[in-house]
Amino acid sequence: MMTDGCKTELSAALPAGRVFFDFGAHAEYTRDATELVFTPDALCFAESEKDILAALAICRRHGLPMIFRGAGTGYSGGALAVAGGLVISLERMRDIAVDVERRTVTAGPGAITGDIMAAAERHGLFYPPDPASYAESTIGGNIAENAGGLRCKKYGVTKDYVLAIRGITAGGRIVTLDQDTPFGLMDLMIGSEGTLLAVTSVTLRLIPLPAPGRTIQAVFSRAVDAADVVAEVTAAGIIPAIMEFMDRDAIVCSNQYDRKQRIEEGAAMLLFETDGPEAAADADRIKHICRKHAPQSLREAVDAVEREALWQTRRNLSKAVKETAKSKTAEDVCVPPSRLPELVAYVEELRSRLRVRVNCYGHAGDGNLHVNFLGMTGTEAEREDTVRGVEMLFDKTLALGGTLTGEHGIGITKKDFLAREFDPPTIACMKGLKKAMDPENVFNPGKMFV
Amino acid sequence: MMTDGCKTELSAALPAGRVFFDFGAHAEYTRDATELVFTPDALCFAESEKDILAALAICRRHGLPMIFRGAGTGYSGGALAVAGGLVISLERMRDIAVDVERRTVTAGPGAITGDIMAAAERHGLFYPPDPASYAESTIGGNIAENAGGLRCKKYGVTKDYVLAIRGITAGGRIVTLDQDTPFGLMDLMIGSEGTLLAVTSVTLRLIPLPAPGRTIQAVFSRAVDAADVVAEVTAAGIIPAIMEFMDRDAIVCSNQYDRKQRIEEGAAMLLFETDGPEAAADADRIKHICRKHAPQSLREAVDAVEREALWQTRRNLSKAVKETAKSKTAEDVCVPPSRLPELVAYVEELRSRLRVRVNCYGHAGDGNLHVNFLGMTGTEAEREDTVRGVEMLFDKTLALGGTLTGEHGIGITKKDFLAREFDPPTIACMKGLKKAMDPENVFNPGKMFV
Repeated sequence: MMTDGCKTELSAALPAGRVFFDFGAHAEYTRDATELVFTPDALCFAESEKDILAALAICRRHGLPMIFRGAGTGYSGGALAVAGGLVISLERMRDIAVDVERRTVTAGPGAITGDIMAAAERHGLFYPPDPASYAESTIGGNIAENAGGLRCKKYGVTKDYVLAIRGITAGGRIVTLDQDTPFGLMDLMIGSEGTLLAVTSVTLRLIPLPAPGRTIQAVFSRAVDAADVVAEVTAAGIIPAIMEFMDRDAIVCSNQYDRKQRIEEGAAMLLFETDGPEAAADADRIKHICRKHAPQSLREAVDAVEREALWQTRRNLSKAVKETAKSKTAEDVCVPPSRLPELVAYVEELRSRLRVRVNCYGHAGDGNLHVNFLGMTGTEAEREDTVRGVEMLFDKTLALGGTLTGEHGIGITKKDFLAREFDPPTIACMKGLKKAMDPENVFNPGKMFV
Repeated sequence: MMTDGCKTELSAALPAGRVFFDFGAHAEYTRDATELVFTPDALCFAESEKDILAALAICRRHGLPMIFRGAGTGYSGGALAVAGGLVISLERMRDIAVDVERRTVTAGPGAITGDIMAAAERHGLFYPPDPASYAESTIGGNIAENAGGLRCKKYGVTKDYVLAIRGITAGGRIVTLDQDTPFGLMDLMIGSEGTLLAVTSVTLRLIPLPAPGRTIQAVFSRAVDAADVVAEVTAAGIIPAIMEFMDRDAIVCSNQYDRKQRIEEGAAMLLFETDGPEAAADADRIKHICRKHAPQSLREAVDAVEREALWQTRRNLSKAVKETAKSKTAEDVCVPPSRLPELVAYVEELRSRLRVRVNCYGHAGDGNLHVNFLGMTGTEAEREDTVRGVEMLFDKTLALGGTLTGEHGIGITKKDFLAREFDPPTIACMKGLKKAMDPENVFNPGKMFV
């Protein structure tokens, strides 16, 4: 609980309009995409490093947690005030400056990833990491979770594009980290889920905008055919810019969400994009492989409008699925791509064994599958089977040599499972680093570790 | 000093033929490429994790440093026993296993990088990071220094290919780290110069072997022309697989070292390699740009034999330079590529201002320049001006927005300069991490930090 003295200090230390104690008008800051609710003691819209430093000094003095927040689109609870404290929204620190000559962009942590992409594109440049939430999620959040995206098999994840990070340590000192900083200190911050550093500015590498690509949609009457196509495309050495998988339930959700962009209903859909100098040749080879597996339908976007429409079905999917259910527990697991067919088959099995709706979709090239447990009625049976289903999914994923967190982070939703994936010495190292960087445990306490 | 009791324990704990206390027959283990000499108390050829664990337990009990060593080709003293202790040579842990289906290779830390490349190539696969020393240096050493190489502008550095690291912590626990391990714990180990983890196995990503490339050599009568060509190639968006620069003194050294592979003597040479689907088009564009700057000579390798011969001149250069001098102080600085012409001009200036021979060569696309201060007679004046020259070079590099260690690490040779490049909060973070990982300071003490 925040004392009145602490409230007075915060109000005095920050300019008007930046600190709030009442969440009536700021209810969204008590939630994120997990649907869990935790009400913080206070909310601060930081506009500068000075604001963060002022707030940090007060939090340290009063032993109050500081929780950094971007757009709140995270699926692992990283932005939730699980132990109370002060939520620092970084959404107002959103400047974006492209350096065309150096092919870089420097942005505030609250800059929306899609805005960074658009700014780069205006100069013929490209920021590839594209989490499905990119139209809303912020680059600070993407860095905190080391977000992947649809293009990550070909172009890599957020980490692969970060050139420099400026931020404030829990001790209240400003550091500027880049690829030359020894000990991979910059990389340490990427994916640290708000527990190690208050990122205040980030510089990203841009690449030349690739030649416009080709988009192919294939629907199959058996999921195994789609999985086989993925395996065959990969074995042929083709790396599409994107290769997405959706199961039948996901297709139905998409069709309900946007009736204009109807996907033919089948057991599974694959959506490909090729780009770069080999775009046309790769697209032809992919279509050839699809045809060998008797697709129910096979189409290619004829122009940019149609291409965008096809992609919109995928980008909307998270919301589309949510609209069809009372509750959605979204997990994000990743297996070696060659084991993906087994994982997809297991999700089928879960569906028949559990008293809760289950669907899945994801980045097939990467073996990254988003699995949703969807409560339709809110019964206890559904809740029980969601918990059981998540556990079963995690066990299977680890048995297949996979990882529990493809790109969503650990946060609170997966911290109980950390010890299943990582051995005690590794977890001890992580805890040691956290303690070295934040001995008072002021940054995002209660996350990642039990 | 190692006590007799400690010696007895070491001999008893390890199988015969693995531990030595006399450096008469093992003089090379007192040195590395820096030409500095430090005699350790003991030397152990580890053949397994068990060996390392046994040695570590004894070192911890006796407060003895452990120094890990690959091939000893490092230029920053990372493998030197500056505080005495036990040198652990990893050269016998050199198994290499390629997994063709997964496109990975798993190797012991003592595997020679060139052997890993060759093993990959036998399966049509490619391990790109190619430090000039790759025929001798080990993957463990490459990871400790996060080695770059000639191809690093296009293909990235060691870090970009590491998928998993297995190793032993200073606390004597085995950890298995991969890209999924939170906190970028794996990345933390890459470039940690033997101070954080005894790496015992590494899994690397391989890529398809690109189509054979084209190799172009251009010699210019003015260094500024070569620098302009580099700038123009970069501005044109061409990313050659390799783009190397050599100054006149380096050309002379190369010609003396291998009289069969004569390079036309000029103020500067550029050596390009293009590869992949655009190899031919890129080569033509590069030649066109070279011609605009009136090269003294411009040639292209006609076949693989000639190509290899041209590259051999570059790969031999470090040794070739060494043979022409009594002493060689090799620095490795890196500036933003657009500032490279200024740095090259400054090296020219140093040459005229100092009483020591100076030459330079390096990875032009990356702005990474190897600058050598060459003592010809061993006089005090030379030694003084080498020290002064290194300082001047470092100051200039930082003023140009560069970094003091392109790919050789900090070790002992650059640790006095660490505070010039990184601010106290950043260094405090590094020290905190070291302390968290190795509270007893047993792994490679006296390195990186003053």
